[in-house]
Amino acid sequence: MKLRLGMIGGGQGAFIGAIHRIAARIDDEYELVCGAFSSDGEKAKASGLLLGLAASRVYTSYKELIEKEKQLPKDERVQVISIVTPNHLHFEPAKLALENGFNVILDKPMTFSLAEAKELQKVVEQSGKRFCLTHTYTGYPMVKEARQIIKQGKLGKIRKVYVEYPQGWLSFFLEGEDNKQASWRTDPTKSGIAGAMGDIGTHAFNLAEYVSGLHVTKLCADINTVVEGRKLDDDGAALLKFDSGASGVLVATQIAAGSENNIKIIIYGEKGGLEWQQDNANTLLLKWPDKPAEILRTGGSYLSSYATHNTRTPGGHPEGYLEAFANLYRNFALCVKADLDSKQPEKEWLDYPGIDDGLRGMAFVENVIASGKSDLKWTDFKI
Amino acid sequence: MKLRLGMIGGGQGAFIGAIHRIAARIDDEYELVCGAFSSDGEKAKASGLLLGLAASRVYTSYKELIEKEKQLPKDERVQVISIVTPNHLHFEPAKLALENGFNVILDKPMTFSLAEAKELQKVVEQSGKRFCLTHTYTGYPMVKEARQIIKQGKLGKIRKVYVEYPQGWLSFFLEGEDNKQASWRTDPTKSGIAGAMGDIGTHAFNLAEYVSGLHVTKLCADINTVVEGRKLDDDGAALLKFDSGASGVLVATQIAAGSENNIKIIIYGEKGGLEWQQDNANTLLLKWPDKPAEILRTGGSYLSSYATHNTRTPGGHPEGYLEAFANLYRNFALCVKADLDSKQPEKEWLDYPGIDDGLRGMAFVENVIASGKSDLKWTDFKI
Amino acid sequence: MKLRLGMIGGGQGAFIGAIHRIAARIDDEYELVCGAFSSDGEKAKASGLLLGLAASRVYTSYKELIEKEKQLPKDERVQVISIVTPNHLHFEPAKLALENGFNVILDKPMTFSLAEAKELQKVVEQSGKRFCLTHTYTGYPMVKEARQIIKQGKLGKIRKVYVEYPQGWLSFFLEGEDNKQASWRTDPTKSGIAGAMGDIGTHAFNLAEYVSGLHVTKLCADINTVVEGRKLDDDGAALLKFDSGASGVLVATQIAAGSENNIKIIIYGEKGGLEWQQDNANTLLLKWPDKPAEILRTGGSYLSSYATHNTRTPGGHPEGYLEAFANLYRNFALCVKADLDSKQPEKEWLDYPGIDDGLRGMAFVENVIASGKSDLKWTDFKI
Amino acid sequence: MKLRLGMIGGGQGAFIGAIHRIAARIDDEYELVCGAFSSDGEKAKASGLLLGLAASRVYTSYKELIEKEKQLPKDERVQVISIVTPNHLHFEPAKLALENGFNVILDKPMTFSLAEAKELQKVVEQSGKRFCLTHTYTGYPMVKEARQIIKQGKLGKIRKVYVEYPQGWLSFFLEGEDNKQASWRTDPTKSGIAGAMGDIGTHAFNLAEYVSGLHVTKLCADINTVVEGRKLDDDGAALLKFDSGASGVLVATQIAAGSENNIKIIIYGEKGGLEWQQDNANTLLLKWPDKPAEILRTGGSYLSSYATHNTRTPGGHPEGYLEAFANLYRNFALCVKADLDSKQPEKEWLDYPGIDDGLRGMAFVENVIASGKSDLKWTDFKI
Repeated sequence: MKLRLGMIGGGQGAFIGAIHRIAARIDDEYELVCGAFSSDGEKAKASGLLLGLAASRVYTSYKELIEKEKQLPKDERVQVISIVTPNHLHFEPAKLALENGFNVILDKPMTFSLAEAKELQKVVEQSGKRFCLTHTYTGYPMVKEARQIIKQGKLGKIRKVYVEYPQGWLSFFLEGEDNKQASWRTDPTKSGIAGAMGDIGTHAFNLAEYVSGLHVTKLCADINTVVEGRKLDDDGAALLKFDSGASGVLVATQIAAGSENNIKIIIYGEKGGLEWQQDNANTLLLKWPDKPAEILRTGGSYLSSYATHNTRTPGGHPEGYLEAFANLYRNFALCVKADLDSKQPEKEWLDYPGIDDGLRGMAFVENVIASGKSDLKWTDFKI
Repeated sequence: MKLRLGMIGGGQGAFIGAIHRIAARIDDEYELVCGAFSSDGEKAKASGLLLGLAASRVYTSYKELIEKEKQLPKDERVQVISIVTPNHLHFEPAKLALENGFNVILDKPMTFSLAEAKELQKVVEQSGKRFCLTHTYTGYPMVKEARQIIKQGKLGKIRKVYVEYPQGWLSFFLEGEDNKQASWRTDPTKSGIAGAMGDIGTHAFNLAEYVSGLHVTKLCADINTVVEGRKLDDDGAALLKFDSGASGVLVATQIAAGSENNIKIIIYGEKGGLEWQQDNANTLLLKWPDKPAEILRTGGSYLSSYATHNTRTPGGHPEGYLEAFANLYRNFALCVKADLDSKQPEKEWLDYPGIDDGLRGMAFVENVIASGKSDLKWTDFKI
Repeated sequence: MKLRLGMIGGGQGAFIGAIHRIAARIDDEYELVCGAFSSDGEKAKASGLLLGLAASRVYTSYKELIEKEKQLPKDERVQVISIVTPNHLHFEPAKLALENGFNVILDKPMTFSLAEAKELQKVVEQSGKRFCLTHTYTGYPMVKEARQIIKQGKLGKIRKVYVEYPQGWLSFFLEGEDNKQASWRTDPTKSGIAGAMGDIGTHAFNLAEYVSGLHVTKLCADINTVVEGRKLDDDGAALLKFDSGASGVLVATQIAAGSENNIKIIIYGEKGGLEWQQDNANTLLLKWPDKPAEILRTGGSYLSSYATHNTRTPGGHPEGYLEAFANLYRNFALCVKADLDSKQPEKEWLDYPGIDDGLRGMAFVENVIASGKSDLKWTDFKI
Repeated sequence: MKLRLGMIGGGQGAFIGAIHRIAARIDDEYELVCGAFSSDGEKAKASGLLLGLAASRVYTSYKELIEKEKQLPKDERVQVISIVTPNHLHFEPAKLALENGFNVILDKPMTFSLAEAKELQKVVEQSGKRFCLTHTYTGYPMVKEARQIIKQGKLGKIRKVYVEYPQGWLSFFLEGEDNKQASWRTDPTKSGIAGAMGDIGTHAFNLAEYVSGLHVTKLCADINTVVEGRKLDDDGAALLKFDSGASGVLVATQIAAGSENNIKIIIYGEKGGLEWQQDNANTLLLKWPDKPAEILRTGGSYLSSYATHNTRTPGGHPEGYLEAFANLYRNFALCVKADLDSKQPEKEWLDYPGIDDGLRGMAFVENVIASGKSDLKWTDFKI
């Protein structure tokens, strides 16, 4: 009944691994059966023990995990593998897992480089397995509602897309203070060519394209490394052009001292506008020129099936970040189970971020960094 | 490692049972091992199947559950029993479970009557087992912070306590429309002598006492049945007097058309005030006469251990209702495990609502309804 | 063209007199021509000089002002007299002014006692002159819109009226610190039998009746003097019953430490609810059970003529307290000018608070204080 | 005592002229004595009559006004001339007024072109008279507080400046519908080379420089004409570089359908951040990495003399757009009066926008439009 889940990375002390595991538990669609939590054998074992895993299914490398699990009987073997390692350790395990017939959930940004992303796209296609990239913010019911409202044309033709992702935690030189999160995220050998742009810029970019339904075609970026000594960008902004003719602005910064994590999107069309921000995640504001603005709320009886399907409680019982994350896991599980049953997944289940989002995200990283270095205003968005 | 959890009530289609199960799963402290989800054998089985239980541990009555589980080997037997039935089915199963050595988590209001509550208090005391009453709102980190701030005297002596719980869902005669939730909650044979006062008034009352650290000694209530044909109160307000000399106002209504579930508390002391509301659950506002108001946020580095212990994610990743609920389950589990290990639980773990909250809640129900019928202004708060 | 305005009270250092003068100036409908700003001759003169008045028209008593002005030629003589003295000096000057044919604007609460209020009502009726009581909050465009929405039945039959007026400035014993405002407002020889109830309770009461269109018929009050040594109430709350069968809660307190002046009203009817608060004065929130809440905004094209008539700027240019106050002055002027032209004032102009509001306000003061002392729950609202 | 004020432009039906007059009245520092409200003699007279002016001082051209007033006795003659005409009619009257010894208040943007602005700067310097450019938003007390906080170094070195000014009123082709405001503002013969950038972009630019205390040195703009048929830009965004090394983003658009007028600024320094927006004008938010965010409020006892000096009412009595505008008029009057008395104005009085703001604003217009047309990323900010 429950899908058998394995995890690569996410040992004791890791941040995002624990989040993935909560997300997987909330809707009871998964059972964690194995893991390669750490390359350090002791740490791996301790992590597995804490999580209640059988010692035989705690591995010390992703290769071992995939190889050994593959040898298990089909009804015992892991079915979905979550990969929650730093960026430079995304591609190889994802590729191997897919090639060996496992469905994969991968943390963002998708890969270390655009080249890897293109390669992974091919692997996914050839594997016939499911692939989810955890762009969490698209899991919020009101973000899904925003997308549907635009898709249904309620705002008319889209003219402007503003997206911003301000964080403040890297305002200081934390990588000099033995901060594990800061260390790898600002290290080009682990993060890739981008810091803030990869870590949170990709989220902002994904949110903009997901909600608007548009694709960026050109961008013009100002990329900065504000904190002295830092090796990667910690701040940036970009002017955007979209395929429909709309324009926009993307802001992503990790040096907004005092800011938490309030990713926000505002879109205007010919007929009206919408606003959503994580800090008020259960509200979607619709603004109109000649009538009162409207406050749409998670749980509202007037919402689309996309919002309703991704909600667990009646209106006024705030669902948050973990539930948004759980929506990705749940929809992925529903699709994998449909596959197992040779059924067609419902359209609401299929609405989780995948390989195309990942590919465009990595293209964003490369293009935005290239634009940051260019003297020309516009850089074409190339994949 | 995980505690073995059983559930009484909460079969398919039930609201609060599903919430309890999510709450139990989030922090991975429990494994659901048995249930008496329904007195309807078919429904009970179907519910158990869906939840992945062994058929042998799906029961059709709470008596059967307790009796059979008790016969299982100690290391297999259920350890914590959650009771999520309507009010009139709280007392008997809770009593039996406790008397047979099981720890109990019980949904609110605690019992059908104050008499039952008093009886249950004795049972809990005699049993030596742990008991939790799910007053969810005290599980929010910023509610815990509010309590600590007052406890530490930062607001000075408390002068005023305002608490309000406005809902709108019973603005219409839903019990006439085959609405399961509305039907039992407005039915005196199932809910007891109070409707709104029992269902949400007890939450408001508990929040007021929990945060202020004070006890109500007198109240003066206006209790109304607004919707025609309804058998119980759906609206009320009460003036309050507290043991410290503070006064207050409590509002609880289910006919606030258009309202969701925004329980809110505002407290003023000699030196300042605080505000919290569920709709902005990760924020606690502190107000001062001669300096700027302060916005405390879940995840803030400046918070007490009580808030920090009850938070899973960094600041700006909104945690909501389900996480607040999970905090009750988690703290209860930590205490039960400490008991099993014959260790003293940490003070933060012990901060979950229990039998005394339940007893005072039932006294509130009886006193507030009595006051509603009285011509005298003040009714002493009797237990 | 401009009406000739005189003022009684409001000398240098006074608070509300300066506010009245700004309110009178904003819309250019008045010219200040005379004043009895103080009984202290020097202070009166200095005040008059600062305001650019002719020395001949600066008086040292209201009697002198009325007597002397009456002797001036009709086209020179003052036309509207504003009275901005403490409560115990309201009745006599208002009476004398009206009896001598002057239109009167009077600060609230209307009089020192209900008996005076009744007497003043007769005087107003007999005088045939216009009378305005400055319940400022009914001057806000969105408060007027709220009233119209209820009047038009958009919320259905009204069920609940919540009104609150929290201030914090009297949290301390300011009257012991040579604070002029605190001194007279807490002095029963100047304020009358009530402190907070008279000063701000009357505002809350007036707002509740104005917006709901209902009349209070019974109340049950808890009246407190919280700060030691204070001679009058500084805190209170009342349960309310209205003529239509609706019920409500009124809160007025001046010991809400850290609170400013955020008077707020929330009303629920059968079909929906509305919320307005001074802190967000240009917004009126409408809440509905089955559709999104709506945000009505000052300047919106969809508003009633009552809101539009009382607005000067396009949407998004916040109008505040002084403009609300000015709306009272402006509407009064428009009516007085219509009288002078023997024309019928527009209905929107007539929408300013008058003698009936004042009479009910004073009845509120007496009834709420009486209820505070009563052991019975309900006190009939007697006039 | 009151300064004698004259007005050029602002006849019946004009928007901003009426606003200027209210602003001039609020604090009673001016008396309107003359005007050239319209070149249409009948309209000019009617406007003058309505405003209660002597017929002899209602003129039909700015030249006539200046010439005739100059011939009046010194103690009768106008002292301050407000110019509220469309942009193409700013320079000539301002120049003539200054050259003839009158102090001038001028609406923004300052001139039709940068060349005119440079010329006007010389005129102001040579005249020795006072000059105010009505960048209203710098008149808000909490904007002044924001500037002081940064000046005092409380945020540390400034790193990021975000400013946005979204309006929605030009989402439609209003200039095709006989809309007077839309017509001239989108007409290059009246507005100059910029539409939105001149009308509101200059406000955003001025606010950014005023609050941050920094100067823009480079910018990179995306300038759009979104509504078909429109002759000038109605939308734009720019990346900014400041003299201190800080970077920023400026957004100004008039096609944000459903938006009102919510100009907003967010600034981050090494130690913390601040946020202000017109929609919540009496609040200034300070954000800190390791302590709670603080809410500073107009009227707070903890504010600087700059905020306090520009506030009329106690905290919680919202002051708005008209009061912010009035602060410009009041401070200008205090300075002119000090000049007349040969006294040194207080530093708080001198804090009104002047010729340098105007010059930089016109440079912004030319540079941002030039950047919009450039293929290069960065355009140096040239004056």
